[in-house]
Amino acid sequence: MDAQTIMKPYVIGLDLGGTNSVFGIVDSRGDIKATTAIKTQGYDRVEDYVDAAVDALQVIIDQVGGIDKIKAMGIGAPNGNFYNGTIEFAPNLSWGHDTVVPLAKMFSDRLGIPVALTNDANAAAIGEMIYGVARGMKNFIVITLGTGVGSGIVINGQLVYGCDGFAGELGHVIMRRENGRSCGCGRKGCLEAYCSATGVARSARELLFTTDRPSVLRDMNPEEITSLDVSIAAGKGDQLALDVYKATGEMLGEACADFAAFSSPEAFIFFGGLVKAGDLIMDPIKKSYDEHVLKIFRGKAKFLISGLDGASAAVLGASAIGWEL
Amino acid sequence: MDAQTIMKPYVIGLDLGGTNSVFGIVDSRGDIKATTAIKTQGYDRVEDYVDAAVDALQVIIDQVGGIDKIKAMGIGAPNGNFYNGTIEFAPNLSWGHDTVVPLAKMFSDRLGIPVALTNDANAAAIGEMIYGVARGMKNFIVITLGTGVGSGIVINGQLVYGCDGFAGELGHVIMRRENGRSCGCGRKGCLEAYCSATGVARSARELLFTTDRPSVLRDMNPEEITSLDVSIAAGKGDQLALDVYKATGEMLGEACADFAAFSSPEAFIFFGGLVKAGDLIMDPIKKSYDEHVLKIFRGKAKFLISGLDGASAAVLGASAIGWEL
Repeated sequence: MDAQTIMKPYVIGLDLGGTNSVFGIVDSRGDIKATTAIKTQGYDRVEDYVDAAVDALQVIIDQVGGIDKIKAMGIGAPNGNFYNGTIEFAPNLSWGHDTVVPLAKMFSDRLGIPVALTNDANAAAIGEMIYGVARGMKNFIVITLGTGVGSGIVINGQLVYGCDGFAGELGHVIMRRENGRSCGCGRKGCLEAYCSATGVARSARELLFTTDRPSVLRDMNPEEITSLDVSIAAGKGDQLALDVYKATGEMLGEACADFAAFSSPEAFIFFGGLVKAGDLIMDPIKKSYDEHVLKIFRGKAKFLISGLDGASAAVLGASAIGWEL
Repeated sequence: MDAQTIMKPYVIGLDLGGTNSVFGIVDSRGDIKATTAIKTQGYDRVEDYVDAAVDALQVIIDQVGGIDKIKAMGIGAPNGNFYNGTIEFAPNLSWGHDTVVPLAKMFSDRLGIPVALTNDANAAAIGEMIYGVARGMKNFIVITLGTGVGSGIVINGQLVYGCDGFAGELGHVIMRRENGRSCGCGRKGCLEAYCSATGVARSARELLFTTDRPSVLRDMNPEEITSLDVSIAAGKGDQLALDVYKATGEMLGEACADFAAFSSPEAFIFFGGLVKAGDLIMDPIKKSYDEHVLKIFRGKAKFLISGLDGASAAVLGASAIGWEL
């Protein structure tokens, strides 16, 4: 530990989600020393959101010995631009959907510490590199399987931000160029339209509507089926649900084969809700990857599940950006 | 210019192709001071190839004032592994098709200077960064459209080699997952199967066989049609040939849209034989890219043609690796 880490042993992480904003104060080993949360929505102005956040933060900052103990703050947020420290046109934020919010500067001005901001998938990638399964790796790709599909790409030990701060949108590579599913981005056939939690539920509904196959999912209102229901059904051996996970994993494996042609990573690391399905999704990913990848890359990449503790993974990821400042 | 560049103002570049090996001695502005060449094939052992190469090189080294004037040597070669300085299982090299050849070390031992080796597309990317249109850029992708489709990717000012030295095989991302064309790599639907010079000729033949459309290309033996013939026909206004270039450009634009989701480059730079078609290929690339790319990336990337002088571009690219040593 260097002198500065002894003097300022903590960073703040903020996982800014569509519903909740969760704060943690984290040490260099990834132990969360204190945590708090506020609602993300319900503020007309971003200033009111920051006021509420700083009030909540002050309590846990005092718990760890005051702001002098804190090196920096990292924020993981939707549509986060690392270069500018801004949240740009985030459709799901009441105070940020139609504008560019300089959130890093706002927190930095209030707290008097450096603050950096990036999207949640990039935060997850830095989190894996600092506290998780990617420690010591220089080339890896984190794929987040949640409501959407996100990614954080590390090359030569550095997060890939691209020319504009928005690189690493692997959920929006096109996997089906003909008759592709509509995606929230307005295009068709994106990876996210199939392999997000929403995509898994949609795949299940498609199979229920277009086949006569039996399934315990037929007992539910189709519109209410979630990826968790599909996972529970699969866990009970429901063949239709198992096939949905198999197809999802197969497409992810195909996609990773293309990503290997780009950056030949040492590992693909999966993160997020769908990963709870474990082998149900990881086995088809690995099998499909081996079948589809260019021969020179075969057998080289590891397929790993996130090493960050589930409940606090997003906060840890966000906090990790603080150590890079 | 730093002191070392004044003392040792030159680097050697070797463009090691399937037929010829072309050497150039290059200064820091990209001016070729002396050049020579030998046949690549016709040697049973790599030692004999290196002997012939060093004999030829010695003449031009003497022309520029001896080996003391030379900082390093860069080699652009098929299946080149930068990390190991090796050529690995290069199918088209008589002395290298079934083995791993430590060519960088062999030249370094003989010449007494540092030698680095990478594949030709990576060499082209470094060439663009040092002498060409990518000077000052930190994030760009070079796509080489020759017999195959290759790529060199630069992120944060560094060439992307990946965990094994083989990253950047964008010619082998899959563009057609159903009924894809066979590719030389043994898989189906690769970008290279459509957008290489060979792919362009194949597209023309397909249109000639599957339609009754008139074309000056019908006067030729279909098996002898090359991309150059298609380009000449298109230049004369032949609609079938024009459509082949349009379709080729459209697929390249679609592919670049996916590459943007990966690394959001400042520019895509096209290099190689097909680029001679100019607007015939560049216009459909740009149009298709704008139609297919994710909204946040639209209008950000430039589409450029290589700034390296055609005849000597590959030698310049190879030599550029020498400056990085």
